[in-house]
Amino acid sequence: MKNKNNNKNSCNGCHGDCVSDTSVGFKISEDFKRFNQKNDIFSRSFWDDQIHSEKTERFYTSYRKPLKEWKKVDGYQHRDFSIRNAAWHVTDFFAERLEKSQDRREGFLDFLTAHRPSAAESRDIPDPVEMSREIKHVAKLFDADLCGITFYDERWTYDKRFNRNQLEEVEMDLPDDITNTIVVAHEMDYELLRTVPSALSGTATGVGYSRDVTTLLALAQYIRNLGYQAYASMNDTALSIPMAIQAGLGEYGRHGLLITKEFGPRVRIGKVFTDLPLAHDKPIHFGVEKFCSICRECTKACPPGAIDDGNQLETIYNQSNIPGIAKWTTDAEKCFDFWVKQVTDCSICIRVCPYNRKMPNWAFKTWTNLMATPFRRIILWLDKIIGQGKRNAPSNWWKGH
Amino acid sequence: MKNKNNNKNSCNGCHGDCVSDTSVGFKISEDFKRFNQKNDIFSRSFWDDQIHSEKTERFYTSYRKPLKEWKKVDGYQHRDFSIRNAAWHVTDFFAERLEKSQDRREGFLDFLTAHRPSAAESRDIPDPVEMSREIKHVAKLFDADLCGITFYDERWTYDKRFNRNQLEEVEMDLPDDITNTIVVAHEMDYELLRTVPSALSGTATGVGYSRDVTTLLALAQYIRNLGYQAYASMNDTALSIPMAIQAGLGEYGRHGLLITKEFGPRVRIGKVFTDLPLAHDKPIHFGVEKFCSICRECTKACPPGAIDDGNQLETIYNQSNIPGIAKWTTDAEKCFDFWVKQVTDCSICIRVCPYNRKMPNWAFKTWTNLMATPFRRIILWLDKIIGQGKRNAPSNWWKGH
Repeated sequence: MKNKNNNKNSCNGCHGDCVSDTSVGFKISEDFKRFNQKNDIFSRSFWDDQIHSEKTERFYTSYRKPLKEWKKVDGYQHRDFSIRNAAWHVTDFFAERLEKSQDRREGFLDFLTAHRPSAAESRDIPDPVEMSREIKHVAKLFDADLCGITFYDERWTYDKRFNRNQLEEVEMDLPDDITNTIVVAHEMDYELLRTVPSALSGTATGVGYSRDVTTLLALAQYIRNLGYQAYASMNDTALSIPMAIQAGLGEYGRHGLLITKEFGPRVRIGKVFTDLPLAHDKPIHFGVEKFCSICRECTKACPPGAIDDGNQLETIYNQSNIPGIAKWTTDAEKCFDFWVKQVTDCSICIRVCPYNRKMPNWAFKTWTNLMATPFRRIILWLDKIIGQGKRNAPSNWWKGH
Repeated sequence: MKNKNNNKNSCNGCHGDCVSDTSVGFKISEDFKRFNQKNDIFSRSFWDDQIHSEKTERFYTSYRKPLKEWKKVDGYQHRDFSIRNAAWHVTDFFAERLEKSQDRREGFLDFLTAHRPSAAESRDIPDPVEMSREIKHVAKLFDADLCGITFYDERWTYDKRFNRNQLEEVEMDLPDDITNTIVVAHEMDYELLRTVPSALSGTATGVGYSRDVTTLLALAQYIRNLGYQAYASMNDTALSIPMAIQAGLGEYGRHGLLITKEFGPRVRIGKVFTDLPLAHDKPIHFGVEKFCSICRECTKACPPGAIDDGNQLETIYNQSNIPGIAKWTTDAEKCFDFWVKQVTDCSICIRVCPYNRKMPNWAFKTWTNLMATPFRRIILWLDKIIGQGKRNAPSNWWKGH
């Protein structure tokens, strides 16, 4: 299993210290096993009768077809579902286009298909540090808000893929000679997330994915045009969060999400697997672990109580948890059950997170800097008083305020 | 022919005065005829032996395959073509996906195919003014930089489509009951355009199109989800510039491009044809006509001399010009010939245009306000001294400065 940076000697950026689990902050035991995508809650909602129901069917159908009757509750009306589903349009298009003909669900169960092959002649890359700088420049031009680079760590690649048509697991088809992972992140819309829970707020998820798919397709094609391999991946193929942490995009939060310096947990993550020679970023630490240790905003706000209230342990609620990593653990069964009842996804944990705040850059920097000091309790108290984490009525969003 | 605003009575926004050609600034004579897309220079480069050559083939192939030999000239190297073609990736994907199987070239010769049908039950729209406000809110959420709304004016719809496989014209398939046109614009990357001419600068075109296709697909799907018709269109189906002018996005410039208040000529335009009840925007006038009358920056900078040096007349250089409209006219044959020789598109006319300047908002507003006064000659003189229109070396862009 590739869980070492075999590029160590060729990486001029991290000088090898990007790789140790200690420096990243991972606490991994001997019980660790790679995750099988069959056990992810979305896969389970198709094959596992404990999860699958008429209501899960209604949940998925609501993304494709109008509800039988439009609700009158603010945030769950005709226009709210219309915009949410329109936001998912581009992502859905790619996810569905080869689903019947080739059993591939791109972006969710399978990587995005390359539109054109890699160039036969590859560009000479004398300096991986310079190449990494260039890749970040290109990723941002192609609309990525953040971009980090790390070595390819096979531990995060799914042990098996899941095939939703056959309801069976299938072999992972990523080639053996991948060496690096480029991780990109897109900010999700702050104002839409203020309206969580609502069908309207699911628009932020859809727009995030659609931006992700566009960036990834273009970035991977750039690498192929240079004559290297590139596999563009969203939720398929591998766990994004540990890779994003290794690539220096942020830290792990109590709600089980990546917390970035720039946008807090308000991001969607994508990645490109490649053999392009690249230098690696160093993981960053800006006080998240200590802050989440004293904060319970997400835990308290989660309606089904799916978020960890305790310490970082190797908790296993059910088979949707990965074994052998001491971390805050969420109960995906409880979480998804709430989604299904709401007929839309939920991001309450993002809305209430004190790292999800909108201020001028300098103020947000000061805010997060203070969160990394003993003043963190004051910040937490202040956050409640300011009340930015409160829900905004969806009708207010529609009115533009 | 629909060239009147039949919605006049239902439009609460423009009170009917959005429709007159005089208020828009169009000078249209009895010789006017709708344009046949067969006569567009890109179509002609396939069927017209006067245009088609081995070199035009090489030009198009360069967007799909590596050149036989990489050039050493700055801006035309492996990485420059690689990023340009990657930027076109998403657009190319849609353009090519149904080309063989259904003879449709989406976004260029045919409108973008709807992924899901319109909802059977349509939302009641009591107030078109409010609906227009909402559509603009949604368009901007879906990444449009500008959005304007006008009535559907059939004069700008191509008389016939062109089928590139059959090399034949085909009937226009837009339904009869379209009433409105939503026009969106996306800013093109300023820094990339500073490097024109170069293969690198074509990246700005590609990114612009890719953003356009994503916005249009989502916006059209939003309207269909509300239960109305929506046809998302890029360069296919109709002439975008007159529609954008009618929708209040800007004025017509000497180089034959739309000049917007916000980004000057640095935009790409898309549109959605719909029967959703909408109020219309008023055309805007901010002094472009008078400024272009005294300015010859684009005319002088155009290597093949394809840009008008005189007054607004009903000039016809060849069949790629539309008859019966007095306007500054470009010679598409000369223009495209230069593209083919460069093996990439050209935007020198955008780079040198004094409306294509990057300054803080307040400064740009002052700048364009002065361009609308008798001080315009001073601005033109100042623009040359400041020298913002000069080419930046492509290698500087790669270095990030």
